Amino acid sequence: MKKVAIGVDIGGTNTAIGVVDDLGNVMVKDNIITPSHGDIDRYIDDLSVAIKELIKSVKLLNADIEILGIGIGAPNGNYYTGTIEYAPNLSFRGVVHLVKLLKIKFPELQAIALTNDANAAAIGEMIYGGAKGMKNFVMYTLGTGVGSGVVVNGDLVYGADGFAGECGHTTLIPGGRLCGCGALGHLEAYCSAPGMKRTAFELMVKYNATDSLLADKSFNELDSKMIFDAAEKGDKVANEVFEMTGKWLGQGFADTVHHLSPEAIFLFGGPTAAGDYIFKPTKESMEHHLLPIFQNKIKILPSELRPGDAAIVGASALVYKELEK
Amino acid sequence: MKKVAIGVDIGGTNTAIGVVDDLGNVMVKDNIITPSHGDIDRYIDDLSVAIKELIKSVKLLNADIEILGIGIGAPNGNYYTGTIEYAPNLSFRGVVHLVKLLKIKFPELQAIALTNDANAAAIGEMIYGGAKGMKNFVMYTLGTGVGSGVVVNGDLVYGADGFAGECGHTTLIPGGRLCGCGALGHLEAYCSAPGMKRTAFELMVKYNATDSLLADKSFNELDSKMIFDAAEKGDKVANEVFEMTGKWLGQGFADTVHHLSPEAIFLFGGPTAAGDYIFKPTKESMEHHLLPIFQNKIKILPSELRPGDAAIVGASALVYKELEK
Repeated sequence: MKKVAIGVDIGGTNTAIGVVDDLGNVMVKDNIITPSHGDIDRYIDDLSVAIKELIKSVKLLNADIEILGIGIGAPNGNYYTGTIEYAPNLSFRGVVHLVKLLKIKFPELQAIALTNDANAAAIGEMIYGGAKGMKNFVMYTLGTGVGSGVVVNGDLVYGADGFAGECGHTTLIPGGRLCGCGALGHLEAYCSAPGMKRTAFELMVKYNATDSLLADKSFNELDSKMIFDAAEKGDKVANEVFEMTGKWLGQGFADTVHHLSPEAIFLFGGPTAAGDYIFKPTKESMEHHLLPIFQNKIKILPSELRPGDAAIVGASALVYKELEK
Repeated sequence: MKKVAIGVDIGGTNTAIGVVDDLGNVMVKDNIITPSHGDIDRYIDDLSVAIKELIKSVKLLNADIEILGIGIGAPNGNYYTGTIEYAPNLSFRGVVHLVKLLKIKFPELQAIALTNDANAAAIGEMIYGGAKGMKNFVMYTLGTGVGSGVVVNGDLVYGADGFAGECGHTTLIPGGRLCGCGALGHLEAYCSAPGMKRTAFELMVKYNATDSLLADKSFNELDSKMIFDAAEKGDKVANEVFEMTGKWLGQGFADTVHHLSPEAIFLFGGPTAAGDYIFKPTKESMEHHLLPIFQNKIKILPSELRPGDAAIVGASALVYKELEK
């Protein structure tokens, strides 16, 4: 009998659902709209129907399938309580008892668990990806924001309240750029995809770089992919964006190492497609900021989760960690 | 039968040794010189003799005593390997196999273990002090340097290589003050006792504060106790030193919270005697730097270990963690 887990990734606009096999391959998947109506009961109804349909369709492919459970990644997802708490980008108000409500819909499943998306990605890396066999590592996810998941002694660190691993909100430059959270100088304001865009404009301002390949794009048009393309064409501003981003990210990584001494730090997300453009300056900066006892020990590795499916796959991996207990 | 543990604290000039009961009280203690001759075998001989004498004297007090083991706190002490590695302030060269050598001298003991002094303090807090029953907390030790010990899920975090918990060397201000480790802008350069002295002189320079109670002390004379005394007398510079130190420490604590979401952060060391002068601005700054999901949740607490004995007591606590396994 083939054992599979269901992964659910709740985003601000879409909820992605997939059935994932024990190697981390998505067998079937679907999307529903994450509603703006704020009615959690209606959403749970819709989500349950979609999950049941997917289970039906995967059993058509292979009748000999056992569903182990459901893992969910969601903003402000609290593992301990199974709740989503005050998530700024979701319409549900206050504290939403997601796991409890899903357990009523799926009483037959052994494991239903919830955490935030970056924590789910870290567990996905540990169960299916490049962190297999690693006991101490950290995952940084670069996207609209910067998320992170911390693994110590083989377990994800949830901390006292379930919300550990918000390394994107460590202070990189006191009094620096405004972060999405309202504070100043956070790593996320420098190293996220929008952070890279801000750096590009900062550099165009500094050099009055009218000849940059990025100079014809508006503040709302420019994205990190365009910066990468320009860097490959030798654009000075674009290249310096990657150098600066790496410098900042490496400073943040060193802070993480000084806390946790991980075996590796994994990088996930759009900007990592730039390869050495981002990995090389990040590594150099991290080494520069490390105490001698940590130098040349910590690997910086690209995530081995496939970009399109990583959120679903990561969320599904939660099920395996639950069943270990 | 009364069970006791031996704690050894290896400092740059002195090695303190004590027999500690299961409540964390030091029953008997002694000191030997940490040698400058660099000969580890001679040092192990001296240390073993001193430990055996202490065991003899404690058995004279109470014949019904069982020695559970020896716990050692030492700079750059590596728990995994039982070695001291390239400790800048000790005369031993390279990697010293301290635990292995002590096991030869004390083959009858169940547990002999080593870590660095701040990690030992964290374990001491967990076994005997204010962190009893806490599963997730962090210990910061303020002294000549700033050390730290991280506890996750009830276990000290050693990380991949045994050296986790060097939070004093996170970057607080990029390009800022020179740290003892040679890097720039580390927390230790601002929040250690010498860091506070540097802040006092920075402020006297800024205000040309010839009327400050600190203005008649040389750079080498001024210490954190004098700053506290001046603050109590209403000295403006001294008060601002505590405000600034708290501001910086709170920024660092917030970074720690964003990594680990601890239940509490404990503060240990000389400057903590200043009480609210240091705790209040630290708490305010930490809250200011925290994401809303963490605000008003994390306690900042003074260590409950007695200052004079804390290093010995902390080291002895390692023995209990060893025996748990």
